[in-house]
Amino acid sequence: MATTTSGRAAAKTTAPRPVERRNRDEAVMAAAISVMSERGYSATSIQEVADRVGVLKGSLYHYFSSKEELLFRIISEAHAQNRVIAEEVAALGLPAVDELFEYLRRSCMSYLENVEVTNIYFAESRHLTDERRDQVRASGREFEKHIRDLVTRAQKDGQLTSPLDPRLLTRYVLGALNNVRTWPSRSGKSFSNSEMADAFVTMTRAAVGAPPV
Amino acid sequence: MATTTSGRAAAKTTAPRPVERRNRDEAVMAAAISVMSERGYSATSIQEVADRVGVLKGSLYHYFSSKEELLFRIISEAHAQNRVIAEEVAALGLPAVDELFEYLRRSCMSYLENVEVTNIYFAESRHLTDERRDQVRASGREFEKHIRDLVTRAQKDGQLTSPLDPRLLTRYVLGALNNVRTWPSRSGKSFSNSEMADAFVTMTRAAVGAPPV
Repeated sequence: MATTTSGRAAAKTTAPRPVERRNRDEAVMAAAISVMSERGYSATSIQEVADRVGVLKGSLYHYFSSKEELLFRIISEAHAQNRVIAEEVAALGLPAVDELFEYLRRSCMSYLENVEVTNIYFAESRHLTDERRDQVRASGREFEKHIRDLVTRAQKDGQLTSPLDPRLLTRYVLGALNNVRTWPSRSGKSFSNSEMADAFVTMTRAAVGAPPV
Repeated sequence: MATTTSGRAAAKTTAPRPVERRNRDEAVMAAAISVMSERGYSATSIQEVADRVGVLKGSLYHYFSSKEELLFRIISEAHAQNRVIAEEVAALGLPAVDELFEYLRRSCMSYLENVEVTNIYFAESRHLTDERRDQVRASGREFEKHIRDLVTRAQKDGQLTSPLDPRLLTRYVLGALNNVRTWPSRSGKSFSNSEMADAFVTMTRAAVGAPPV
């Protein structure tokens, strides 16, 4: 308790030390995610984030320069996490159809396990401006292109029997994935995350004509 | 021109006449849809809606009492339109599986033809409060229940071969439908609305194990 109190006082006048800074940084991000997910970006106040972290509002500006920067960091971390999933799955060296569905299954699990961040990503990205908006849009396009490339390769391999245009297959697959975040609130606690991810993969395989597993 | 000018002046002091009111009402709704869809609800100003209709801001309050009421009316009209589709399709007296996919195809076309309203519905409903929020949520649940009933009946009829829980089938179908509104902006002008609706129905039938048409 004494440490926290002196930490608070110190934050008002001097920059925090590296380890303290990293811990505080994570606490700030967690508080921002929880406030934004409850109230929405527009109604989120830095005061409430500070209250949840247990620091004075002014000291938060050691960690970020604006509410928009906080939103940008939440979204950038989600993208970074998705990029790691894509790289890990690509490293398995699977045929395109298997890489596609392994990537979709892991992304689906990640969305379900981080449903607050996923909701912020889909509901609030449009509040970003200028370079931040451009950067997030570019990451979104990269994500879509990754799926489209896998779909196109799997279709050329004859592993997706649907004759539809790969752009339509991609839109459908991506739309179904993006929507899984709404399943838990609607189905209550009836299904575990892995039951939902398995069901998502089973239905999506059938939708695009991939062989059942 | 003279009529419009005197109409504007009159609106400042007296209530508009019935026919004039209906036309103006439609113009106000159209302007509100276009401003909210461009700026988002939070950034929408009544001043801008008034500018687009070509009336003074004060006169708009003959037509609605608040920005929230405007949003509520936009969303309520979308729900009413969907209810009409459901009733028209039910009146055809089709087997459950055919009623389900005819309803989905028509809803999909309606979403694509009214993409601004559809986006407002999905992005802005959470700004509604109290009775308005409860009413819109109740309509959303009614919509989901309608699909779930059709899915459950079609599965019992043996017309959906997927063995998955009907709640998961419903979530998937509804999610895929809700997402179609994002297809046009991503695929550019490459596909007509009916090509997209047909592709959506084909993939969704396959996803839940309905016989191909």
